[in-house]
Amino acid sequence: MRTVTYGAACSLDGFITARDGGLDWLHFSRDVEKAMASYWATVDTILMGRKTWEAAMAQGAADSTAAAGADEGGRGKAVASDAAASSEDGEATATYVFSRTLREVPAGVQLVGSDAGEFVRALKEQPGKGICVLGGGELGRSLFEAGVIDELGLNIHPVLLGSGVPLFRDAGQDINLELCESRVIDGGCVYSTYRVRRDR
Amino acid sequence: MRTVTYGAACSLDGFITARDGGLDWLHFSRDVEKAMASYWATVDTILMGRKTWEAAMAQGAADSTAAAGADEGGRGKAVASDAAASSEDGEATATYVFSRTLREVPAGVQLVGSDAGEFVRALKEQPGKGICVLGGGELGRSLFEAGVIDELGLNIHPVLLGSGVPLFRDAGQDINLELCESRVIDGGCVYSTYRVRRDR
Repeated sequence: MRTVTYGAACSLDGFITARDGGLDWLHFSRDVEKAMASYWATVDTILMGRKTWEAAMAQGAADSTAAAGADEGGRGKAVASDAAASSEDGEATATYVFSRTLREVPAGVQLVGSDAGEFVRALKEQPGKGICVLGGGELGRSLFEAGVIDELGLNIHPVLLGSGVPLFRDAGQDINLELCESRVIDGGCVYSTYRVRRDR
Repeated sequence: MRTVTYGAACSLDGFITARDGGLDWLHFSRDVEKAMASYWATVDTILMGRKTWEAAMAQGAADSTAAAGADEGGRGKAVASDAAASSEDGEATATYVFSRTLREVPAGVQLVGSDAGEFVRALKEQPGKGICVLGGGELGRSLFEAGVIDELGLNIHPVLLGSGVPLFRDAGQDINLELCESRVIDGGCVYSTYRVRRDR
């Protein structure tokens, strides 16, 4: 069974964007690079909702017109480049965008209009590597509700943003977790991973 | 200048009570006991808002009628007993409850109806030990807005509660923090402390 992971970089109060949608509070470092590289090596499939997709495309477009610099890459750039990237063993990363209203996505991206929980449950039964759900959207909530998310990864930044896009939304039930790892990384960020407990 | 700290035990999604107000997700351990003991030794003053006060009183009353057990103590119990307790050096802990509507509090508890930010700013100038703001209420938001909170302490529990009383509310501005300490304690909890940065 493939592992479905959910997560993002977030503020201490749980937002993945600032109130204006901004990402300039994100801290990039060698630590983040290394953590992401080992994570992406376990994944061959990326899932996201429509809003995340649109934000990623907007950010990707903005980045590609800007001079590229180590500190300029935002979440969207990472998403856009990873969606287009190949996984370690040469297979392309599959990208699914969940939306009942979107009509067109670029070649290589797959649009899913059916029930997200059912779709992901079936996807997990297929052979393949890990499945990454990009955080913050309604998609995350649906997939928590459907009980198909297995692991969480958070890079908690030392800032209170007060408002913005929340990483977690109410899934209508308590979700018990088991801490796998938590460590301080560069910039006073706390990188933690959890496993979803199904035992109660 | 006295240090004002804000914090609480919370879920990974930032709630300090479950949706029904419950606290049965709280994990007590020797680690928590030790961390709290060293923290309380630095404090001689506790501040809380009306709702926190009422919840503490309700919880304290419930606990005092229940058979006392190591796992039964909730936040309220801790608050109620600490409010009544003496600090290490024999001086009584001062407890202030902030409310414009409350008319009566027990002897030994002080009611503050004036502007919370101004009051705490003045309190910090007086001699004394640390000042603890109990988390979750509107009081916390007012004190963040007023810029009088110096440090944060969180005991992040491995659970998503989805709904309940949030630890953080929107203070209308980004609040930059500096991580002081983060460590894994018993039960998969992550205990982290932060300093509020005034430098930008």
